[in-house]
Amino acid sequence: MKNFNIAILGCGTVGSGVAKILLDLKDQLNDKSDHVVELKKIVDLFPKKSAESYNLPLNLFCGSGNDLTKDEATKYVNEIINDTNIHLIVETIGGTSDYVLDIILNSLRAGKHVVTANKAILAEKGKIIFQTAKDNHVCLGYEASVCGAIPIIKAIRENFTGDQVIEISGILNGTSNYILSKMQEEGLNFSSALKMAQKAGYAEADPTLDISGGDAGHKLAILIKLAYGADIDYKELLIEGIQKVEKEDLDFANEMGCTIKLICYARKIDNKVFASVKPMMVKYENFLSKVSGATNCVELLNKYSGKHYFIGKGAGSLETASSIVADIVFTAKYDGKIKNITDLADLEIQSSDNFEFPYNITFTTEDYPGITGLVTTAIGENKINIDTVSHNRHNKKSAEFSVATMPCTMVQIKKAIADIRAKAPSLLIGEPKIIPILN
Amino acid sequence: MKNFNIAILGCGTVGSGVAKILLDLKDQLNDKSDHVVELKKIVDLFPKKSAESYNLPLNLFCGSGNDLTKDEATKYVNEIINDTNIHLIVETIGGTSDYVLDIILNSLRAGKHVVTANKAILAEKGKIIFQTAKDNHVCLGYEASVCGAIPIIKAIRENFTGDQVIEISGILNGTSNYILSKMQEEGLNFSSALKMAQKAGYAEADPTLDISGGDAGHKLAILIKLAYGADIDYKELLIEGIQKVEKEDLDFANEMGCTIKLICYARKIDNKVFASVKPMMVKYENFLSKVSGATNCVELLNKYSGKHYFIGKGAGSLETASSIVADIVFTAKYDGKIKNITDLADLEIQSSDNFEFPYNITFTTEDYPGITGLVTTAIGENKINIDTVSHNRHNKKSAEFSVATMPCTMVQIKKAIADIRAKAPSLLIGEPKIIPILN
Repeated sequence: MKNFNIAILGCGTVGSGVAKILLDLKDQLNDKSDHVVELKKIVDLFPKKSAESYNLPLNLFCGSGNDLTKDEATKYVNEIINDTNIHLIVETIGGTSDYVLDIILNSLRAGKHVVTANKAILAEKGKIIFQTAKDNHVCLGYEASVCGAIPIIKAIRENFTGDQVIEISGILNGTSNYILSKMQEEGLNFSSALKMAQKAGYAEADPTLDISGGDAGHKLAILIKLAYGADIDYKELLIEGIQKVEKEDLDFANEMGCTIKLICYARKIDNKVFASVKPMMVKYENFLSKVSGATNCVELLNKYSGKHYFIGKGAGSLETASSIVADIVFTAKYDGKIKNITDLADLEIQSSDNFEFPYNITFTTEDYPGITGLVTTAIGENKINIDTVSHNRHNKKSAEFSVATMPCTMVQIKKAIADIRAKAPSLLIGEPKIIPILN
Repeated sequence: MKNFNIAILGCGTVGSGVAKILLDLKDQLNDKSDHVVELKKIVDLFPKKSAESYNLPLNLFCGSGNDLTKDEATKYVNEIINDTNIHLIVETIGGTSDYVLDIILNSLRAGKHVVTANKAILAEKGKIIFQTAKDNHVCLGYEASVCGAIPIIKAIRENFTGDQVIEISGILNGTSNYILSKMQEEGLNFSSALKMAQKAGYAEADPTLDISGGDAGHKLAILIKLAYGADIDYKELLIEGIQKVEKEDLDFANEMGCTIKLICYARKIDNKVFASVKPMMVKYENFLSKVSGATNCVELLNKYSGKHYFIGKGAGSLETASSIVADIVFTAKYDGKIKNITDLADLEIQSSDNFEFPYNITFTTEDYPGITGLVTTAIGENKINIDTVSHNRHNKKSAEFSVATMPCTMVQIKKAIADIRAKAPSLLIGEPKIIPILN
């Protein structure tokens, strides 16, 4: 059997998990890949700390186990990139800096296969990375970049080649889902649920990237590139986080037979991709509504095989590492002869606001008889079919109720709201809350 | 690009779906496989009928579109096997006859790759088929044989190579799940629900293979071979169908926070595989409990990546065909250089009865004070921890109640029942119903 030698750059949570699995499952990995898969070198600024986390041998770390300066680390990284005895580089440094981008690109240019969990850099700078891998006839593995342990990348790339992905809808951020689950299950408001998530270790001290939808957006961008071959610009995605979801929204959702989830949504129609990351009301009949806590779930609606759900752990050291190791085995098994780079076409990204969805609109209004009639009439006049109207919550001076519509566009809804304002200028208190419904 | 030519043997529900996708997605398949994938020939006894089902061109069928005798069909099959211009044969004839086995083996020996949806023949005669494929350095694709559209074969074979499957538990038979769902949701008894399933097209006129657990057992046997490399004998599996599940069992299950599902279960411990197909009470917290109707779901518990659920369509023409086409593309893409034959070791299969599970035991007893105490004392004396005792259903002359235990073995339970009989010989009416609980 031929050797297949690995170097790990960045040995934090995920990198150390990769090292552990490579050492623990050696026989299995050799058997499955038909190669002698060997972890040769690790570069990390803090070898001792890293070695302790999974009891890794210090002698694998460059620099005799001593802490490294950034310059020293860079020197070792460059040695590895130029080492003809290394076949594959695991990039688990993270971040979108030029420093990391250069490491990835230089590795590919030096003929190394690269496996990474770095969703941010793939979402934001994927085009040049994909192209460089292709130009240099090497493999780029990124199963771990979307939903940690869930094998969704390979599912789209290898398992559904006899089919076509029509629609993607997924819960791709565990932190947001944990917070929304706690709000629903325990009646907490957003800030209490966020604190709980931080205490439980599911949210960072600065939770912005998770709760703003940014992290989920990175993953959706990668799935869109893969499923539709669309070279979309991550920055063009319509991304809205969960910060504005209130307890009351969950009550209205529940009355409509739904819960609220942060949904990554994409659908290709002709040469356009409709996509967004935003809170949606998900019908209880849809499995996505049943996924609670930090779990991830991806739903694919395929042309021939219908709906698929993939549910599993979206993060974690060994969970994410297991996906990286699977990519390593796959690359070794096929001797790097994997045609895994999708050609990216310039497809137009459209916000799914321009797309027909059923919507739930929650109105806060003055409270006097005839309001429901006025509001629903304006909606009907804009050719929007109404599905359900909620109970009216009568507060002291105002009333609050929800209208769930049949599929329509945001353009129609905005027009209906303008019509209501024209007919009764003081009727609406604040902006109606509009949230798409996922069946 | 090189040519990659296909012949389909048997063009019924699934075969005609394969033909349709091969014709419809030609460009995509060529692009994804880097070959010109071409459907060259179809052999079916009734070409006209088959061609009509998906509007297939009659000229693809051997015999100028005329109905064939079996001898004529055999002649065409042999021509295809000996045709050096055919690279891959799709076997969608079905059944476990020597006739079909010979076709598969002769195709492999002639250097053809074979893709099949035939779960029965793989479960019962898999060893020789796997070995023949290996000896002849050709590929055997069988994604479609387990859960139609769900890519569970490739998930185990390619996606979880950096991990180890500890436990498999799945709903692998749509007919049984449809019946149990109807019993639960609509309060039907078994025979009414079965009739409903037949009417809806989910159950055959002779539903034996489905409701007896046989079909599910075939699929479990294949998953065990693959996940554990265990050359198990399908006939050694403990298989119990759903025929004895009664409405009352579902009531007790519901009181214990469970529903009843036909569960295919396997777990490897040291050199033994514990496995069974039987109705189990599934806790509502487990996703398997939420899978209703004819949908399939496979749960894998992995060493590093934890729990995964794969949910999707388990049957259907295009659904199953899409998996076959994915196998074709994969085989073409890697020029048949796929190392996909698992070496099978002789592992011992143990009934999961010898394995610790929580169990639910439903007792029908005489009805007088003190019975619960007597029964639960006998259970406790056998070192079985009790989790919950249900409400007692008082009928005219008898009482009925359930005891849910903490994990224990069937040996302990049988001893407890014998002890109860020894203490109060007439107390128990009939045999207690014992059903394992899946958390």
